[in-house]
This record gives sequence, structure tokens and C-alpha cells, in this order.
Amino acid sequence: MEKYFLGFKDEIPKYLQIAKHIEKLINAKKIREGERLPSIRALAKLLEVNTVTIVNAYKQLQQKGYAVQKIGSGTYAKGKEENRNFLKEYSSIYKKVSGGLVKDYIDFTGETTCSEFFPVDTFKNVLNKVLDRDGADAFTYQNALGYEGLRESIKNHFWEKKIDSENIVIVSGAQQGIDIVSKSLINVNDNIAVEKPTYSGALNVFKGRRANIFEVDMLKDGVDTVSFRKILKKNKINCFYVMSYFQNPTGSTYSIEKKREILNLAEEYDFYILEDDYLSELIFDDNIKYESFKSLDINDRVIYVKSFSKIFLPGIRMGYLIPPYKFSERIQNSKINTDRTTSSLMQRALDMYIKEGYWKSHMKNLSEAYRDRYKFMKKNIKDVLGDKVEFNSPGGGLHFYLKISDKINMNCLELFNKCKKEKVIITPGVLFYKNSIDGEKYFRLGFSQTDIDKIERGIKIIDKLLK
Amino acid sequence: MEKYFLGFKDEIPKYLQIAKHIEKLINAKKIREGERLPSIRALAKLLEVNTVTIVNAYKQLQQKGYAVQKIGSGTYAKGKEENRNFLKEYSSIYKKVSGGLVKDYIDFTGETTCSEFFPVDTFKNVLNKVLDRDGADAFTYQNALGYEGLRESIKNHFWEKKIDSENIVIVSGAQQGIDIVSKSLINVNDNIAVEKPTYSGALNVFKGRRANIFEVDMLKDGVDTVSFRKILKKNKINCFYVMSYFQNPTGSTYSIEKKREILNLAEEYDFYILEDDYLSELIFDDNIKYESFKSLDINDRVIYVKSFSKIFLPGIRMGYLIPPYKFSERIQNSKINTDRTTSSLMQRALDMYIKEGYWKSHMKNLSEAYRDRYKFMKKNIKDVLGDKVEFNSPGGGLHFYLKISDKINMNCLELFNKCKKEKVIITPGVLFYKNSIDGEKYFRLGFSQTDIDKIERGIKIIDKLLK
Repeated sequence: MEKYFLGFKDEIPKYLQIAKHIEKLINAKKIREGERLPSIRALAKLLEVNTVTIVNAYKQLQQKGYAVQKIGSGTYAKGKEENRNFLKEYSSIYKKVSGGLVKDYIDFTGETTCSEFFPVDTFKNVLNKVLDRDGADAFTYQNALGYEGLRESIKNHFWEKKIDSENIVIVSGAQQGIDIVSKSLINVNDNIAVEKPTYSGALNVFKGRRANIFEVDMLKDGVDTVSFRKILKKNKINCFYVMSYFQNPTGSTYSIEKKREILNLAEEYDFYILEDDYLSELIFDDNIKYESFKSLDINDRVIYVKSFSKIFLPGIRMGYLIPPYKFSERIQNSKINTDRTTSSLMQRALDMYIKEGYWKSHMKNLSEAYRDRYKFMKKNIKDVLGDKVEFNSPGGGLHFYLKISDKINMNCLELFNKCKKEKVIITPGVLFYKNSIDGEKYFRLGFSQTDIDKIERGIKIIDKLLK
Repeated sequence: MEKYFLGFKDEIPKYLQIAKHIEKLINAKKIREGERLPSIRALAKLLEVNTVTIVNAYKQLQQKGYAVQKIGSGTYAKGKEENRNFLKEYSSIYKKVSGGLVKDYIDFTGETTCSEFFPVDTFKNVLNKVLDRDGADAFTYQNALGYEGLRESIKNHFWEKKIDSENIVIVSGAQQGIDIVSKSLINVNDNIAVEKPTYSGALNVFKGRRANIFEVDMLKDGVDTVSFRKILKKNKINCFYVMSYFQNPTGSTYSIEKKREILNLAEEYDFYILEDDYLSELIFDDNIKYESFKSLDINDRVIYVKSFSKIFLPGIRMGYLIPPYKFSERIQNSKINTDRTTSSLMQRALDMYIKEGYWKSHMKNLSEAYRDRYKFMKKNIKDVLGDKVEFNSPGGGLHFYLKISDKINMNCLELFNKCKKEKVIITPGVLFYKNSIDGEKYFRLGFSQTDIDKIERGIKIIDKLLK
């Protein structure tokens, strides 16, 4: 309780001083995300103020998005970012390794295709052809939707003309897509549902909007709809964020039945599905068919987000959104207010790249290359790590999600630190949960940056460390 | 009062139903931005509920950022966007004209340099040199700060090495810079101050954060610091958004004394200055010296935002931020959550363009070309429009801001519509104010897209219409 104590200044109302003090404690991580604040009575006693003062202070905190009241059980802190210290350490080594600043590491953190697969020469030729064709036009602002040619290409090559090119918004990658959708649809204290575990970049955007986040457990075929229903019955959910294929981090893919069920729930409980389709090009298991939530959506409930960066060239920063018609204008305005428009030259180049058939053949090659790595790694984890870990086979994508066996007394942060010393970088599970403790036994191994030799050496080292 | 009436449903608390109803009225523009909501007593009577229910409904609206309470004078609606219908019309013709979809228009809306001045060939050569030099590296993710080479170039070529390249964050244009800063520093119901009038793209971002916006009148040498002080005394202001040179739309430039005064106010009243340096390369009056708020800032109070797009190539989407040291990490995180990183290839190309001296010579040419247009237009407005308008000479930048003489019974929307019929597009003043009515007599004439011939013809048409 000690940390709650503060000296009052005369000129400012006490309830504001108390709220500000608690806000500072939350920002400084002295009160943890999800921590229960003291009861009104107890805090009033400690600070020698009226209980009404504490009631008002807690209301002020709620209003600013720093606390959430749960009926019958008190008030809880709502932090902005979790795991700050660890995140710093992780992102520092992550940057160094992925930026090539330190060498000889085995990098299992990769989320995007490897630079050895970049079609640099082809893309260079395409860029030059665009510049010769369009001249100065390639450097003007596009309209907020994006370059018309590219939107047409997306419609024709990825959607069999079943969508309207006027309803596609070009964005600078999936992260921006999620940010723009959030600005359009999520207000402070709105409720949103996410998969548990989920992509931390999305979690951070929702936290930044000061939304209330509800996690729904991931199963092998998508989220647990029984517990999702329970949440929906009790809370007005605005939006559900979902990765339909090779979910990050679990690698799970939604069954078509589950997709239909969730689409029905969206209609029944009036929420929108934010579908992040981030790696569906890389299907290695022939039993998995591609059918997005968007393609099954008859009630206009899905906001579809697609990144071209992850699978193609991370540095070009490109992706697109397909919002429900009713949000189309709102989302365009949000794009304008975010950064006006995405690079015109890059949009034109990508358009030509797709139209001339390069995209299709490149994806074919990429898929074959990664399929080999995937098979090798799956066998390697099974044969070498054996019952030290539990895992499912995603059947596609660029990573595996592993649980350290309960028999082994080690959590993922310890494993991360030990690996680091051996020049192996893994992604600890704690990054994917609202409350980090839920991810303590998990870690993710991505194979996008590791060839077969590195996979073999890396897994051997992890095996040694888990002993 | 009629619009406030609603039929209650049983299962939801009445105060929530009332709040939701009013929220809808605000979103539908049936309650206007800044409109006073009915008194608690009157609304309670109308809806036949307890006054406490209305108190709670208004509190809920405040919490969601849809209303603001002014002590002693009641509760006022806080809308998200103003002028929606007009904005739609304006942006539709704006897009058509600036996108080249309709021809033969005289376009006075230009805010960015004209495509005839784009250094397409040079930039193409630079792009190819970068691709030959860097290969696949040109398409990888950069770290969140941006490409190190470009940050070094900015430090050396624009800041005489007086800033730290580790404190520069590359962004995708000024709009994104403002958005990222807002996410980092502005929470719902925080107070922020802006110039009156100001850039609508910034206003929209602040409204999107559901901040409370205080306007400070622009004078010839910067904002009216007497009324600014009054605002500061009564309200805790977090942030002041300022355009230091050729302010948009007034064209005013801050005197060095006023800059110093505002920097002192920032320290005294603990707020931060968001400086948008958007066209300071184009100084035509030799009495104007370049000295940014940032360069005068000894207390680390300034967040400097610079766009390369406006002055150079709009389509490359590039700019940078220099935050105070204490916000550095927060702003980097915000950039990551917004779109991870700006296009790697474009950063490298711009870096080489600056390093090889092209930037400097291009700016010299551009400045000479626009100086001629500026002088011509200034003389033309004086000679042709005479006392039909009032205006100041900005001494630089790319536009003039004019007030329709009080003797002429016409507002800027009428003038806009008449001009449009004559194929002349101007920017009405209403876009630059929190409450559009304040801008009724003003309009902006930009000359970035109009050569001398078009300027002459355009002014003649405006003269005819003002008669």
C-alpha cells in the first residue's frame, strides 16, 4: 500500500492528485497491468480523505483509460505497455541480429521472407519500366484509396474480380492497416476481443487506443467459441482481431466450420471481424484450402487486412484493406489523417510486378523453398527435442510454436537468455499475451531466416539447453 | 429539443441509452460541434427520468470524448469531424483536379511542388545506383529510427551536426509525424492548443484523439501571446501545434522574439511545442532569416516535424521527427505500432540524393522559380483585386491568404462554388477553423500548380466574381 501514499498540494483537487499519482505508478510499472487497486475504503483511510474522493479519483482513472471497473470485484489497473524492460532487451538483440549488426547468430525470430529470396533484379527492372512509362506521375500523390491500377490488379489477380476495386484501400503494410482500422472503429474503453495468444504489434495498437481487451483461447482449429460466446453474452464487443491462417504465434488455422460459426456470431452480437491474412500464400499441407473469412462473409462483417511486405519485400511497405462498405469512407479518412497516401512509385511498381506475372511465379518458388525447410524443421524438432517440448504442425507459414514440457523446470525467458549466450535467438511466448505470465512456458521458432544447416545446429543447441 | 427524444428499452440502463442516442445525434451531425446540450433539468423532464440519470448520461458522453463540461455553463457536444458534406464536395473536386482527372482547371489549391519541377531523371539514376550498391538490403526492414545513412545526412546537411542522429526518427511525411506524436503524447480529453486558423489535417488528428482543442488567434508575427497566456493560466495545456514559417493558411512567420516568448511559456506552463516546418526552404523576402523553434530550444521542449514530400516529391512519402530526448523511446514505439518503418529503398535514395549535392541545387532552382511566381501573384492580387480583399505578404511559401472585404456581401463558400463553375478551384477558409463559421470570409490561393499565365487568368475570374 505504501506506494499509494502521496503528499497533497493545496491548489489542485485531491481526487485529481490521487488519480495523477496512480497514473504515474502505472506508467512506471509500479502498479502492474491487471493489478487490483486498493479498495475505496482502504485507500481513503490511508490517505485520510473522504471515500467520495477515492470514488472520483478512480472514475478519473477510468475516464483516462488507466483503470477498468469490474462489477462486484473492484477496480483494476490498465497499463499501456507490458514487459517494458524485457521488451527493450529483446528488441535490442532482435534489431542487432535482424539488422545484420552482429554476425554468426542463428536467428529464429524471423517473421518475413529472407533477403536471399528477394527478386531484386526483376523488381529493379520493373521500377525502371514504371519510371520510363509514368515519369513525374510516379511521384505525385495518389488519391487516398491508392493507385487505381494496383487496386484493379488486386481485384483481378487475388479476388477473381469478386470484390469492388473502389472498396480496396492501399496501406503501408498490415501494421498500418490495423492502426487505421483501430482509429476508425475503436474508441477509449471500447471492448475488443483477440486470440490468446496473439500478435503483439496488434495488441499494442489496441492498448494505444485504450480499449478493453478480452482474450479468447486458441484451439487447434481456431478460437474456443464456447468461451467466446460467454464473453459476448456479458460484454458488448466491437471488434474481433483474427489471423485466419497459421496464426501468429500458435500456427493454428481456422476450420471452415469455425469461420462460419464466428461469422454468425458477428451478425448475432453485432461485432466486426478484423482478419489479418498474413501468410496464407505458404500452404504446405495439401489438406488446407484457402478460404478467407472475407470470402465467406455474406453480412459485410469482415475488415480484411493483407500485407505484401511480409511475404514479398519488407522494405516496400505495402498492403491493403477491404472494409465493409459502411466503413469505407471512415477508413479512407483515417488513412488520410494517418499519412495521406502510400508511396506512389512503389504502388505502380507492385502493380506492374503482379500484372506481368512475376508475383505468381515468385510465390511458387518461395513456397517450394520454404516447404523444404518446414519439413526438415518439423522432423528435426520431433527427432531431436522429442518429449522436451509439445507442438502442433501448422501445415504452412514460417514458424513453429513450442511449449516447454512441464517436466522441465525452465521458463521461456530463461531459455531465451541461455540461447542468447549460445548465439541462438528465439522469441519467448510472453510477448504474445496480455498478461505475460500466461506465455511463460512457450516459445516461437521461425525458420524464415535459417537455412537447413542453421536449423539443425540451432535445434541441437536448444536441446542441450533444455536438458 | 425534439431530437433528444427516444424510446427506452428495458434491458439496458437508461443513462447508457440516452448517452448512446446523443452520441448518434453527434455523429449524424444532428447536434453540431460545440452545441450546448440541454440542461440536466430540462432533459430529465423531457425524457421523464431522474436528473441523476441525465448526469450519468452526460458523464458517459464526456468519458467517451463526445462532450465537454464547461464549469458554470453546461455541457457541450464534441464532434469528430466538421463540415462533412462540404468537405466531401471539396475533396471530390480537389481530387479530380489535383489528380488530373479533369482538365483545364486553374488549380489554386496546390500545397506541394508542381510535377514539372520534379527531378525525375536524377532521382531515377539515384535509385538505380542505390539498387546496384545495396541489392537486397534496400528491401529489408530498417530499424524503427530509419536508415542510419539518411539520419546522418539530415544531421550533417540540415542541422550543421548540432543534433544527434540517434534522436532523428524517419517518418512517412509530416502527416504521419503529427499522428505519431499525437499517439505518444495526447490522450482522450487532454488539452491542446493550435493556431487559429490552422492546418485541417492536424486538427483532424487531434480530434481523432478526442482531445480538447483551444485556438489561439494568429497575428502577423505569430499567435497572440496575450490570449495564449490567459488560456494557459486557466487550462493545463499539453501541447501547442505551430507552423513557424509561412503558416498554413495565414502565411504568417513567427518573429524571433515571439518564438523566444513561446519557448519560455512552454517551460513556465509545462507544455510541448509541436513545430511543423513545412516550407521554410522557400524564403523570398531577404529580411526573413531561418531559425526554427527547435534551434532556439534550450529546454528540450520542441518536437520538430519536417516533411520532404511537400517540397520535393509528394509521392515518396518521407519526412522526419526530432523529439525531446525524454520522448525519444515513446515516439519510436509509436512509429513501430503505426507502420513499423518507412520504405527502406526510398530512404536510401533520398540519402544519396542529399549526399551527392542534388538536394541543395534542386532547392535553389525551385526557390528561384517560385520566387518569380510569388512576386507576380502578389502584384496581380494588389493591382487587380485591390480593395475587394485584404491580405498580408507572407514573404515565402506557396500561397496567399485573403479576406473578402466586409463591403462585399459574399462568403467563401459562395465564392468557391462560383469559382468552380468557372473552372477555378480555391480553398475556402472554413476548412482551417475548429468552428467553420470563423473562416467564412477567408480563402487561400496557392500558386504551386499555377504558372504565370494561369495566375493572371485566375485572378481576373475571381475579380469578376467578387464584383
